[in-house]
Amino acid sequence: MPIPSVEPTVNAALSTLLEAAINNKTKPPGSLGELESLAHRIGLIQRTVHPRIVAPAVIVFAGDHGITAENVSPYPQSVTWQMVENFLADGAAINVFARQNGCALHVVDAGVNHDFGIRDGLLDRKIGRGTRNFAQQPAMSHDECMLAIERGAALVGRLDGNVIGFGEMGIGNTTAAAALMHKMTGAPLSQCVGAGAGLSADGVAHKLQVLERAVALHEHASEAIDVLTTFGGYEIAMMVGAMLAAAEKHMVLMIDGFIVTSALLVAAKLQPAILDYCVFSHCSDERGHRLMLAHLGARPLLQLGLRLGEGSGCALALPLVHAAVNFLNRMATFESAQVSGKER
Amino acid sequence: MPIPSVEPTVNAALSTLLEAAINNKTKPPGSLGELESLAHRIGLIQRTVHPRIVAPAVIVFAGDHGITAENVSPYPQSVTWQMVENFLADGAAINVFARQNGCALHVVDAGVNHDFGIRDGLLDRKIGRGTRNFAQQPAMSHDECMLAIERGAALVGRLDGNVIGFGEMGIGNTTAAAALMHKMTGAPLSQCVGAGAGLSADGVAHKLQVLERAVALHEHASEAIDVLTTFGGYEIAMMVGAMLAAAEKHMVLMIDGFIVTSALLVAAKLQPAILDYCVFSHCSDERGHRLMLAHLGARPLLQLGLRLGEGSGCALALPLVHAAVNFLNRMATFESAQVSGKER
Repeated sequence: MPIPSVEPTVNAALSTLLEAAINNKTKPPGSLGELESLAHRIGLIQRTVHPRIVAPAVIVFAGDHGITAENVSPYPQSVTWQMVENFLADGAAINVFARQNGCALHVVDAGVNHDFGIRDGLLDRKIGRGTRNFAQQPAMSHDECMLAIERGAALVGRLDGNVIGFGEMGIGNTTAAAALMHKMTGAPLSQCVGAGAGLSADGVAHKLQVLERAVALHEHASEAIDVLTTFGGYEIAMMVGAMLAAAEKHMVLMIDGFIVTSALLVAAKLQPAILDYCVFSHCSDERGHRLMLAHLGARPLLQLGLRLGEGSGCALALPLVHAAVNFLNRMATFESAQVSGKER
Repeated sequence: MPIPSVEPTVNAALSTLLEAAINNKTKPPGSLGELESLAHRIGLIQRTVHPRIVAPAVIVFAGDHGITAENVSPYPQSVTWQMVENFLADGAAINVFARQNGCALHVVDAGVNHDFGIRDGLLDRKIGRGTRNFAQQPAMSHDECMLAIERGAALVGRLDGNVIGFGEMGIGNTTAAAALMHKMTGAPLSQCVGAGAGLSADGVAHKLQVLERAVALHEHASEAIDVLTTFGGYEIAMMVGAMLAAAEKHMVLMIDGFIVTSALLVAAKLQPAILDYCVFSHCSDERGHRLMLAHLGARPLLQLGLRLGEGSGCALALPLVHAAVNFLNRMATFESAQVSGKER
């Protein structure tokens, strides 16, 4: 499968029209802050001064990681499948937030180390029962990685809407994401490693040691797909594919926290224009995420100290996306409302 | 009328129960960040581990300011009544955001310099046709100020719900709010004065000069009600009354930006426990607001560079308030979902 190709949204004429439309609304120019930039961005993505939000959805990609054998998470690997069951039973944070904010939720088994059987509400796209331990060997084979990207891209075809939020579940995946961050941004590993689901300071130090050894072992890996194959996860590779396909379709991509952004780092290396399509839902409390966002020149909508994953930040930020589109479409203009403009 | 009395929400036993309920949810402890603090706070306000959000409403208080005679705003005073008309015609930002997020909207004429007649959807609580110019004399009489507080308190009796958001409209009211901030916090005027609806740097410098003269003229004013009478506005005084009455009724108070927070500074001087009832919806781009919030020890939910007023930040932050209550009520626990806890 070829990597989906993503075109920049740049359009000077439309940009001028959007700016005028935003500034003619009955409010001091600029007074809606980031919502104005967001409305502008969505207009460019959808190539219109009248953007619409249709059937937003969050997809949660779940996968297991062989690196958990190195004791990098405070939780056992079985929590991955248990949380998938929790998603299916409607009991997790993402279920609550997605329902509240009118967002569809899809759960994908990208490679969980568990046999779920055929289950209502679970999309079986399993590549394997967890990746291999990248402290010893590459996490995936090249073919597995490409298959994950392909399956992720194909999933986007199932969506009716024009907004896709990315979420993930996978014990150990902050370790994989930290390695991706290091290789994709060049930031020292010490700035990429954090507490994940709740490691102690000793735990974080151990995680850093594990990563230093693993990075040294695979020092040859440098090209984006190689790095993804070596350190990534099935759920991370599947997100890369879904992101590229969604941007190719001119959808709005809502980016969640540390792990989702690590997938975006890979996707952006393959197709830099993908960043035009991204809305950064929040800045996570996971160390490293702020630096990732800075690397991408991204301004997150929410800064609430979240560090849960699951796409929870996307679901929580969705009302702000609606607000950006709604003010642009529904507010009166100075002229239509006969409100006076500035005098000085 | 006596000032409504506000009791602290402190309750050690309930606090422990709330903390346990929050930590038993299927997520790493603390991983919902500020939403966890918010759920805890709302539980204490409502005195329950099962809080509910009922019929949230934003009230927009409109009033005019005599200080506009000193050329402190880039917009003419007539924009106040024109924007009230815009609220009634459903064309302003607050209309769009309140509707989107399921929030009732009430518009109050606290003292606009305009004769609206009897109008559907406009609550006529007019104290006068704009305050006096506090560069020359006190903005209000003591009786007017107390009447505004009383009418604000009475308005709360009209609400069915348990969440009240505060909004305002009044050309010139960032100048009044800057004076209140200076007198209530002791911060130098230069840190209290900002661009308001969009002053140039020269305009801000002029606004500062006007304020310095006015503060010198009224240097005797120091007690909270005196300061409010001298520098405040009808809409600001009415908000003070509504805030106190809402907190007395154990409602959740959603605080908007610079002007609303200036009213809260006065209310908190009268009844310090009111702060237990406040949710700070956002940090405004108006210079001074960040310092106000710091003075109150407040952590705002949104930081989007908004500086519009109207209660727009309250309406935009409301989904986060719902999210806090919903995760507490609806998420599964580790036990109910049979998800394993931490191993290390």
